[in-house]
Order: sequence, then C-alpha cells, then structure tokens
Amino acid sequence: MTETTLDVTALANPTDEEVATVDAWWRANNYLTVAQIYLKSNVLLQNPLSPDDIKPRLLGHWGTSPGQSFVYAHMNRLIRHTGQSAIYLSGPGHGGPAVVAADYLEGTYSEVYPEVSLDTAGLTRLCRQFSTPGGIPSHVSVTTPGSIHEGGELGYVLVHAFGAVFDNPDLLAVAVVGDGEAETGPLEGSWKGISFLNPERDGAVLPILHLNDGKIASPTVLGRKPPQEVRELFTGHGYDVLEVEGSDLPGMHQRFAAVLAEAYGKIRAIQQSARDGDWDGEMPRWPMIVMRTPKGWTGPHEIDGVTIEGTWRAHQVPLSGVRQNPEHLAILEAWMRSYGPDTLFPGGRPSPEIDANNPVGDLRMSANPVANGGLLTKDLALRPYTDYAVEVLHPAAERFENTRVLGAMMADIYRDNPHNFRLYCPDETNSNRLGAVFEVSDRAFMERVTPDDVKLSRNGRVMEVLSEHNCQGWLEGYNLTGRHGLFATYESFGMVSASMTVQHAKWLEEAGHLPWRAKIPSLNILLTSTTWRNDHNGFSHQGPGLINVVLNMRGTVSRVYLPPDANCLLSVADHCFRSRSYVNLIAIDKQPHLQYLSIEDAAEHCEKGAGVWEWAGNDHGSEKPDIVLACAGDVPTAEMVAAAQLLKEWVPDLSTRVVNVVDLMTLPRQKDHPHGMSEAEFSALFTDDIDVVFAFHGYHGAIHKLVHGRPDADRFHVRGFIEEGTTTTPFDMTVLNGMSRYQLVEDALNNTDVTPANAQELREHCRQMLEKHHRYVREHLEDMPEVKDWVLNPAT
Amino acid sequence: MTETTLDVTALANPTDEEVATVDAWWRANNYLTVAQIYLKSNVLLQNPLSPDDIKPRLLGHWGTSPGQSFVYAHMNRLIRHTGQSAIYLSGPGHGGPAVVAADYLEGTYSEVYPEVSLDTAGLTRLCRQFSTPGGIPSHVSVTTPGSIHEGGELGYVLVHAFGAVFDNPDLLAVAVVGDGEAETGPLEGSWKGISFLNPERDGAVLPILHLNDGKIASPTVLGRKPPQEVRELFTGHGYDVLEVEGSDLPGMHQRFAAVLAEAYGKIRAIQQSARDGDWDGEMPRWPMIVMRTPKGWTGPHEIDGVTIEGTWRAHQVPLSGVRQNPEHLAILEAWMRSYGPDTLFPGGRPSPEIDANNPVGDLRMSANPVANGGLLTKDLALRPYTDYAVEVLHPAAERFENTRVLGAMMADIYRDNPHNFRLYCPDETNSNRLGAVFEVSDRAFMERVTPDDVKLSRNGRVMEVLSEHNCQGWLEGYNLTGRHGLFATYESFGMVSASMTVQHAKWLEEAGHLPWRAKIPSLNILLTSTTWRNDHNGFSHQGPGLINVVLNMRGTVSRVYLPPDANCLLSVADHCFRSRSYVNLIAIDKQPHLQYLSIEDAAEHCEKGAGVWEWAGNDHGSEKPDIVLACAGDVPTAEMVAAAQLLKEWVPDLSTRVVNVVDLMTLPRQKDHPHGMSEAEFSALFTDDIDVVFAFHGYHGAIHKLVHGRPDADRFHVRGFIEEGTTTTPFDMTVLNGMSRYQLVEDALNNTDVTPANAQELREHCRQMLEKHHRYVREHLEDMPEVKDWVLNPAT
Repeated sequence: MTETTLDVTALANPTDEEVATVDAWWRANNYLTVAQIYLKSNVLLQNPLSPDDIKPRLLGHWGTSPGQSFVYAHMNRLIRHTGQSAIYLSGPGHGGPAVVAADYLEGTYSEVYPEVSLDTAGLTRLCRQFSTPGGIPSHVSVTTPGSIHEGGELGYVLVHAFGAVFDNPDLLAVAVVGDGEAETGPLEGSWKGISFLNPERDGAVLPILHLNDGKIASPTVLGRKPPQEVRELFTGHGYDVLEVEGSDLPGMHQRFAAVLAEAYGKIRAIQQSARDGDWDGEMPRWPMIVMRTPKGWTGPHEIDGVTIEGTWRAHQVPLSGVRQNPEHLAILEAWMRSYGPDTLFPGGRPSPEIDANNPVGDLRMSANPVANGGLLTKDLALRPYTDYAVEVLHPAAERFENTRVLGAMMADIYRDNPHNFRLYCPDETNSNRLGAVFEVSDRAFMERVTPDDVKLSRNGRVMEVLSEHNCQGWLEGYNLTGRHGLFATYESFGMVSASMTVQHAKWLEEAGHLPWRAKIPSLNILLTSTTWRNDHNGFSHQGPGLINVVLNMRGTVSRVYLPPDANCLLSVADHCFRSRSYVNLIAIDKQPHLQYLSIEDAAEHCEKGAGVWEWAGNDHGSEKPDIVLACAGDVPTAEMVAAAQLLKEWVPDLSTRVVNVVDLMTLPRQKDHPHGMSEAEFSALFTDDIDVVFAFHGYHGAIHKLVHGRPDADRFHVRGFIEEGTTTTPFDMTVLNGMSRYQLVEDALNNTDVTPANAQELREHCRQMLEKHHRYVREHLEDMPEVKDWVLNPAT
Repeated sequence: MTETTLDVTALANPTDEEVATVDAWWRANNYLTVAQIYLKSNVLLQNPLSPDDIKPRLLGHWGTSPGQSFVYAHMNRLIRHTGQSAIYLSGPGHGGPAVVAADYLEGTYSEVYPEVSLDTAGLTRLCRQFSTPGGIPSHVSVTTPGSIHEGGELGYVLVHAFGAVFDNPDLLAVAVVGDGEAETGPLEGSWKGISFLNPERDGAVLPILHLNDGKIASPTVLGRKPPQEVRELFTGHGYDVLEVEGSDLPGMHQRFAAVLAEAYGKIRAIQQSARDGDWDGEMPRWPMIVMRTPKGWTGPHEIDGVTIEGTWRAHQVPLSGVRQNPEHLAILEAWMRSYGPDTLFPGGRPSPEIDANNPVGDLRMSANPVANGGLLTKDLALRPYTDYAVEVLHPAAERFENTRVLGAMMADIYRDNPHNFRLYCPDETNSNRLGAVFEVSDRAFMERVTPDDVKLSRNGRVMEVLSEHNCQGWLEGYNLTGRHGLFATYESFGMVSASMTVQHAKWLEEAGHLPWRAKIPSLNILLTSTTWRNDHNGFSHQGPGLINVVLNMRGTVSRVYLPPDANCLLSVADHCFRSRSYVNLIAIDKQPHLQYLSIEDAAEHCEKGAGVWEWAGNDHGSEKPDIVLACAGDVPTAEMVAAAQLLKEWVPDLSTRVVNVVDLMTLPRQKDHPHGMSEAEFSALFTDDIDVVFAFHGYHGAIHKLVHGRPDADRFHVRGFIEEGTTTTPFDMTVLNGMSRYQLVEDALNNTDVTPANAQELREHCRQMLEKHHRYVREHLEDMPEVKDWVLNPAT
C-alpha cells in the first residue's frame, strides 16, 4: 500500500457532493439488484413496465442486498481516499445480486465477461443471467469477480477473511456478517480470529455485523438482543464495537462514513504503532461495526397492508404475483423508478457520477488480484525432499514415526518461505510429530503469554486453535489468496469440517471452468492419529470417513494418498505442496510404523501411484500369480506384507503378488479419474481375472466403488474399517475389522483356485494365533503385560 | 421434583462438617483418578509403591479431572439438600477417570458392572480397566453410567444439555465446558440455547465454564482473556455470570458452595416466577459459572524444576518415567498418599463419610434414569398414517409436494404429544413444506417478539435456529433422554453436522452392546430441498453426501430411505417414528413430484423395502426380462419410469422390469446389513445375470458399494449424482449427471443382449430430444420461456 497521510477527519465528514456520489452509486446498485431479480426486458424502464418484462420465475434475496451495497459504496469512497488495498467478503451470500451489481458498476464484470457489456444489451444480459439456467447462482459464487467466498453454506466469512490477511500486511478484508449466519456455530467461533492476528505482520479484518433483524421466516437472535448485550458480546470477544443504525438519508451516509472512518483510523493506528516498533505487545482491540439497517431497506415499505421493509418478509422476493397483479406491477415500477434509472444509466451506461465512486484499476475490490489468488501465487521454495529421507536398508525391518519426517520438511518450508506457508492444526502439532516446525516458528497467540508457555508468541506463525472450522477456514482463505499450507488433524475429526472441504472442492471444481480464475495452491489435509492407532482414545476417534467425502468429488480436484511409510510420505507431500487447485488428502499415522522403501524406490513408487512389491510377494515376476495381495495405507500394508510373508514361509508353492497403492485415484478407470490407470496398467498389476485380497485403510466399501467397471470387479475382496473399534491394542483393531495378517492369509487361501501343500497347516497356525490373541485380549486386565508386547507386535 | 422450600443461605454456607464431607468425597475421587491413570496393583497403597505396581502404559488426562470432580462433589451436596433431579455432562470429556470415579463412589458403577465391586478387587479392576485393552476409553463414554455425552469429539456438551432439558421442567443439566472445547465453533454457537429455553415448560442448564488455562500444549483463548472480557462475553450471550476462582482449601469449598447455591437459587427463582404465572415474558437471565482452578489442581506442583500444576503440562500424565525414575515414583506415592487413601477406603471400601456425600437412589447423577433415556421413553401417539394419504388414482399422473403430507402428520404428532416430540430445523420449516406444524405450535423464541412476527412465541415448541449444530445437537439430547423428534434440513447442509451424526451413531452402536442401556428413540433426519431440485441455489446446495456418511455406519444402526412419493414417505416416517436407536435418514424433495402408489400399495412396497412396479415395466411378470430398470429416490424414479415408458412405446418387444428401492439397506447382503434381502429375494427382483440400469438419488458409487458381493455385481450400471451441477432446470440436472430419461433409455439399450426392432429409431429420438434440450438451455437467456416449461417438463 502506498503510505498516505490518513486524514480521518476528512474521511469521516463527507461533503454533500461526496454523499451524492456515494448515494448515486448505491441507488444504481439497488436498481440493478431489483432488476436482476425481476426483469428480463425493458431493464432500464425506458417504457412503462409491462407484465411481459417480468421474469417467468422470481428468485433471489432482496432483504440483505441494500445493506451490502451500502457498505460496498462507502468502502469505495474509503479506498479512493486512502489507496487501501481491500477485498469484500459477503457473508449473507444470498445477497448475490448486490455484489454482482457492484462488480458491474466498477466495470470489472464486463472486463471478465465481455458479453455483459456496459450498455443496454449488457444490462439485459446481467438481468437475464441472474438465477436462471445458463446463468449464475443467486448468491455470491466463484463466478463473481472479487470474491473469495461463496455465499452458499453459511458460517465461514470470517475464517476466510482472517485467512486472507495472514501474512498480507497491506490488505484489509471487509467481512459482512449476516445476523442469520451469525447464529451458526462456525461463525460464532470465528470471532476469535483476532486472538491470532498480528498487527505488524498481518493485514486487518473489518467485520461488519449487519443486523437487519430477520432471516427467511423469523427474527434472528442477535437481531433481537438488546443492543447492550450485543455490545457486550463483541467487547467480550475482544473487539472495539462501533455502532451505526438507521435508515434516514442522507443521515445514514454521513453516520456510516463517520463510523467507517473511525474503524479504519483505529486499524491504521494499531498497525502503525505495531510497525513503527512501539507496540507494547498488548493485544490490540480491533474495531468491528454493528450496522443496523432495515431488511429490504429502500424497498416497498408495505404491500397489501402488510409491512415488508424491516421484516423477514423482505428476505427473498418481497413483491410476488407481479405479472398477474397490476397493483403489484405498479408498486414494482414505482419502487424501481424511485432510484432514478434515467439519470443513473444515461444511454444505458452507468453515469460519470457512478464512475466517480469507483476506485481505479486493481484497487477496485472486484478487481483486486488478491481475490484471484492464483495470480499472486508463488511456488514454495522446497528443498529436495530426498534431504529428509529415512535410511531403509531392508524393507519391513525398522520402525519410524512417519509424520516426523514431514515435520522436518515443514520446518525447512517455514525457514525458506517466511510469508508464504502456514501449518494449521487444532492443538496437536507436537502430538502429531510435526513439532520440528517449532525450531523455526512459535505458535501464534495474541492473548496474554506467560513464562510457562513454550513456543508461543506474538510472532509465531504456526496456527493452533482448538477448532477444526477455524483451522480449515483460515487455510482456505490463505489458499484462495495464493498462499500455501497444510491442515493437520486427527483422522476422525477431519469430519468436523467435512462440509467445508466439500464446499471448497465445489469452488475449485467450478473455478476450473473459468479461464480467468488462476489456479491456486491446493488444499492439503493431513489426517494423522488415524483410525488404526487411536488405541486409548477408542471408538470416537476411529473413523476414516473423510476419505469417502473426498472420493465423491470430481476427479479434477480429488486426490487421496495413503503413503505406506516415511519416504513415500515425503514424495507425496512434495507433490502436494507443488500442486494447484486440488484437495489433497493424505492419511498416515504418527506412531512408529515399519519402513519399506528407500527414498529412490519411494520416488518411483509414488510417481506411478501403485506398484508391485516383488520383494514382498512370491510370484517372481510371473504373468499371473495365484492370488493378488493388495494394500493401501500404513497399517494395512504392514498386515498384508506380514500375510505375504506367512504365505511365503508356509505355502511356498502358492504364487502371490503384493501390490501397494499410494495414490487411491489410480484405481478407477481413466474416464472416471485422470489418475486412473490404463486398462493395461491395471491388468499388469491386478490381472484380469485372478482374485484380489485388498487390505485398505478406510471403510472397505470405498474400494468396491473405485474398482467398479474394472475387469471382473467382483473378484476384489476388501478388508478395511468396518466400524469395529474400541480401546484396544493396534493389532486387535486389525483383528476386530478382519484385516489382521492371519485373517488376510485365510482370505488369500479362500480366494485362490489352487490348493497349495501345507495350506491346512497354515490355516491351523493362523487359527491358533488368533485364538492366542483373543485369549491375550480377554486376559489383558489380569496380566497387564508390557507395552511392547501389545502395542507393536501381534500375539507374540 | 418434590417442592421443598429452598434455603439458599444454608446451601451457600456449608458447615465445617459439610465441607469435610465434600472434601473427603473429592479427595477420594482424585485418588481414584490418579490410581486409574497409574496403578495396576497395590491400588490402595497398602504397601510402599513399587515400579511393578505401575501400568505398562500411562494414558489419561489428569489436568481437567480434579476440577470436574470438584463440581461433582458439590453438586452432590446440592442434590442432597434440595432433592433436585440433575445430570452431569462432562464437556472436557477426557477427564473420564474423574466421572468414572464419581460413579464408583456413588455405588452405581458396581451396580451396573458387578465385577467392579466396592472392595479392593473391584478397585483393582477399576484401575486396570481404564484406558486399556478389554477396558474402557480414557474419556467419558457410553459405558459411563449417568452420561448422555461422549467426551470424544469436542463441542457438543451444551447442545446435549439443552436438548435434555427441553420439556423436562424438573431437570437440571449441569454442563461443564472446558476452555479447550470452548474454542470450537459448535460450542461457541451453543451458548444461544437460552434464547430458546422456556422457564415454565423446560428445565434448566447450568453451564460451568472451567477455565484452567491450558489445552494439550498451549493456553486457551478464554483462559488467557482478561476476566472482564470473559464476563462481557457471557453477559452478551445473555447470562448472569457468576465467578469463582482459586485453589486454597477449604476456602474454595466455601466459595464454590456459595456460588453454586447462588446459581441454583437464581434458577429456581426464574422457574418459580414463570411457573407461578407472574412471568412478564422478559427473557430470563440464566446464571452460568466461570470457575477458575489450576489445571491439575492438587497434583504435583513442580517436577524436575518445571512447573506442572496450573500449566498445560498437567494436561495428560503429568509425571512420566515413574517406573524407571525412583524420584518420580516417590513423587507419585507422596501425591497419592496426600489424599489419605487409608481413611478414604478403610478395608478397601469407600468410607461412610464418602457415602454421606452421595444422594440416594435415582437422585445420584450417575443413576438418574434421564441419562438412560430409554427407560423413560414412551411410544409416540401416532394416528394411522393412512389418514394423511394422497389419493393416487393413476401412477405417474399427478404431482404433489411430498413433504407437505409429512407436515400434516407432524402437526398431529405435535397435537397428540405435547411434551414428547419436537421438530428441529435451521429456519426452513415453511420452506420445507412442513408449515402445518404451526397450526399447533409456534416457533420457540425467548428474545424480543414483535407484532410483525408470525408463529413465534415464548410457548412455541418448533425449534428453528440457523445452526445445524444446534438443531441436531438439541435433538440428540432430546433423544438421549427418551423423547422423539425430527431434524429437517437442506440435503447438502446435512453435511454441516455430519460428524455429529457419526458420533451419535457410534454412541448407538456401542450402546447396543450394553444390556443396561435401554433403547432410545431413533435420530430421524429428513433431507429435503435436495440435490436435484436446488435450481437457483446452484452447485453449493447440491450434495447428497450425508447418505454416504450413514452408509459407513454399522448395520445395527444405519437406515437410509428414499421414498419415491408422498404415500411412501408417510409409511417410512411412521416406521421411523416408531423405531428405536437407529439413525434414520430420509431423503425426499419438497417440490411438486409425480405420485405413484396408493396408500395401500405404498404400505406394502415400503414394508418390503424394494419391489417390482409391474405397471411401469414391460416384462409382464416374466422370470427374466431383457433388462432391469432400477431406481431409488423421487427424481430418479420419475426419470426411470419415463424411460420405461419410452421403451414400452418405442421398442415394445424389449422386456423391461422396473424395480423401485425405498429402503436402500435392502441391497446389501444379509450378512452386511440386517435389512439385506435374501439371495432369493434379490434374484427375484434383479435376476442373477441380467444387466441392471440403476437411477440413484445419491453419488452413484454408493450403489456399487452396496451391491458388492451380489451375483455378478458388475452388471449394475448406476447413474446418480456425479457432482455436476449449477443454476439450471431440474431436468437439466438429470442431463448433466447422465440420469435423464433419454440417457437411461440409451443405457438400457446398450446393456441388453437383445436388439429390439425400432431401437435405432428410439436412440435417434433420444438424441434429438437431448439436442433440443441442450439448445433450449443454451438459448434460455434469449428466450426466458415460461416457468412450467423448464421447471417441470423436460424438453417439451
């Protein structure tokens, strides 16, 4: 941002002329909002309004829109005065027409979509495309220039705003929070963002809580709370609460300009103090604005004797039956003409007075490159991942905490990318063995820090907050503005923010259809502390459901990786950190696990995504083994490798092939996913007709789904998590779910056509071992044996 | 509750003897907590502590435990004084050992689990079972008597507490909120419960925010906020904030007794005023307590020169290496002896002084039948569902808003069950066509009500809040305490609280293994405003992912219903409302859809769960048609019936069979789900070898998963949602996802061995119709045709 001397007084006291400019822009926006909802022709009312001008189906949300455009109009004035780089996030996102109208008035919409030109034809197109087939959704969406936030599923406007300003010191994110959205848990939890926002290094979020009292059919909690309580609530969250209320004009323009100037002045004062080096470390009291305006402000006050403006009835389309009811048609026409379309759009183009309220170029919020973050994305500086390799001399011989190597890698990423990467994690960075990052950066914390705290400071950039919604949402905002990161969480609690993952994927899926949206860093999610190793946490912590959620996404964005060991994790992580616009899900446990591949082998294996492990099987490269033993995931791989070993030892004339799958998306057909193996590749691994016993990390049905359409998919016999869990040993978890080595051996023997010598003896051995194991678990409370016996080794 | 005259003064001022009693109980609890974490033998320290007495693996959470038992101890005193019916919900649920110890001290644990007897053998078992294979989890779980709340996934303690007290006027739910949990979005959003709590009709929740400053490795936001801000925050949420802080003894006993008495006095005063009829309707200011005690209170203050007590270091096991390090062993022994085990457990049994702090019988919080809600569950009064039938003279002829009949049914349920049923819905009861309930009950709202509000009052019992987490959590609490309900939400936003659905299912799955846990009403979730009919809301509102989430659950609890029409919905809903301990997911759209079955036919069809619709197909009851046309869900059924009609008309010599599936769980094998059809039933519908074209409501892969293991499952060709969506016509949604009638016809022709006469002509017709449709969508913005053309009819 260009440093300008901030004249808050001038900003707070608009001249009459300035008010007129802002008001014209606002009226034009309101006019376009109503036109988008109602009109398909005669969009500038050059003729008297006729029923034929009305759209066949009326859709959209009027209620929130005038408040949103009011804020936008005043932000434009602020930007013009200050040169501030800003973006606008619309929480009550169904107010889409207002934001689209803003983009249009700023000229950006026509630049991005030339067919929506700045003339009557373009205006007609603007109206017709709204909320109609072949057009755009009724809420702010990925198609809306300047937006990093889809207003569909509510609750995430503040997390996205905070994520956007982390490490973006010159950015101001204005986040309008609707009072409906403010009822959601994720939104209420996201006010805490300021407890993690550093005024020196980060930009600022200006939350504007827009209380218009109603949601779709009833009032909101915050809309009806006494103002005193609302004030206390946000003072308690740590904000400096500024309030503005009313509907009188031009009074509201003057009062809002004043309150916006005050808020901005406070933000700049906080930042300057921190950046001039005279910050005492006290957590700043950031401003937020509580804005009370009537729902459907400037719309019809009363229709058919019923109050509309200021009530929930203004939420959607306030005036219905417009075609059939001449009175309603007349009300609509009067309403629209009240904005003065003739003077606002002379000759069909926004007037110079409207233009005068637009910032120039990239300072227009709709054109700020931050909101098309791919434009600003810089590759991460990554050292060769081979630097962090674990030495593996013999496969399946030594154990290592897999995620620890990732911690080392991320420590260097923090070192080499001081403004371009952050780790987000509920509160388990250390627990997840990623603690090496603390060599480089502390945890971020703006509340009081005491001498007993460790690796916690104002300057920390590791983000820990016990809220999956905040973690994921901050990362999404960080990604959407072009920066890189990782969200690490307990596997089962990845489901807490699953719907955010879904919505972000939808954003990426649709962005892929828009050439003007540059690709952004991928959303990287690490699931660790997995289902198979949540020994004492028990059943509530055992759930690999997020994998299934990601499998439902389009192939253009969904990626699921199950690295079996540390070196494969390094290769996968390196790939994910370099990738763009995917949802990369990586599931791997933090506990000590067997290592299989040298870093060279891992690189090759991960590159292919799936491959034969000849050393583990017994088919000596033959074209067709008697059985294929497939596995995906650390624990399943360990059990399958052990099963193959048992088979080798006991029934050496059974020809087995071990296939390990790292990239789950190699399994579907190529037409179903771009990573899908070709038919030849698939057959080379799994044959076309030999039975496959598959040990899988997640819910077993996922594999059935993935291999559908592959040759004779019925031959895939999958063992995975079947929702059997409790507080028990890791090995018992595999037994409970039918995936232990002994059960896999039995599956193999049951599903091959050959009957090798010694098969009965091996079955008997497995039976005995399982019996021994069951006895062991039964008698555990009596014996309380040593840890190593039950944590790492099955039934020894 | 027996009305007793409440002597707050006596309650607030415990005698020295009373303090001694409470303190003894508390010390005993703390002792047992430490013993559970550390000891496998010598559990009463009758001998000097030896390394051999220490468990091989130390797991558990000490930090939160003493605070929790402190509250429990004092609640016991309050109950003894007042006869108040109360339950205790432990938010910081990893403090499991404290709650288990409380149950044990109250005698309940031994009553439920006789092997954990009130003697040294039982105590040894109590210690050994904790957090170990064959034992219990380290957090409060379904195995814990008196609990309706699993302390695994954090965030839901208040929603469960509020749900428990709705329509339970005599109940007090004490909900301890940890300061870690308080960082989550769902928890922060759940403070709003009091805005919906009626003091006359409902019971009370007493939230106790336990600020002990730390989570696993760092401080918490609320723990470090200035007390003034914390006060403002909760005052802003509408509470009367009472505070108590310290660690001095017996001072803290006296102060906590005083604050608890004050809170209780305020609750009773609010209730009595409301119930005596002199409530002015002003929303009560319910008390809540902010309790500040050191983390790991009464534990080692310092170990190896590092402060433990009062810091995050006390979170889990504060003292490690106890076996190897004689100094640590000595610290542990001294710590444990500081509680005085000799006097607390003379002869191995809790002393009479401890007993003296226990309430009697069902007043013990661990024995309150409310927390084993199935014991109190009454069947819903349900009128014959046939009363609400839609007349269907000809199948596939008329349209009806399916969920509207459910609204009528629920209106009567509200009528006939004034204290035993509630509907929970973000804010879309009317939008979802369930508005008939408002004939009987308003929406609940305790904040200010104005004359413009409709169907909104203090006395309302329809629960609308724009928070899926609150809606679902309240219903879970309501269910868990034995009452019935329905959570209705937009299909795609069912994912917002998906993890709660998962965790509740886990609770039900595990409860099924515990004979003492009586079955409770099922969790009923209605997904409406579905993927296929979110025309203008667009892609963000199109997502049937919750079906997949429920499919992952165990067959003992998971139920997914896709009624094709209104009469089937009635039959399904009636079944769900009568069922127990399931997760019933019903997906059906609210828009006008074709009706197929008379109420008699619907009853028979739903009873079987799947069946042949002879009138729709063309195989005249033959044993083997040329192709099977299967469908599940309203829109898929409409398209498949239309496809069958096209086939009948154009290629009458192709023998087709239409199979409709209502109960998705009939598809898997019986060994995979109890509803699974027998092999014979499955073959009778789908044959063993004829190809099946399947039109499915959800993500298509779900069917691949469900039919795995059925004869030649590869022959199932599924069309479903493949994540293609936008703002478009309903029919275009089916085209985009390859599920339109024309595409289904092609699938049918492509997957049968026969080549009927006229097949080429039919293909050409379909091609033309699809081309016409594509042209129609392309040109839509130019034409803006009438609604009926594009909403209801494909390419007419």
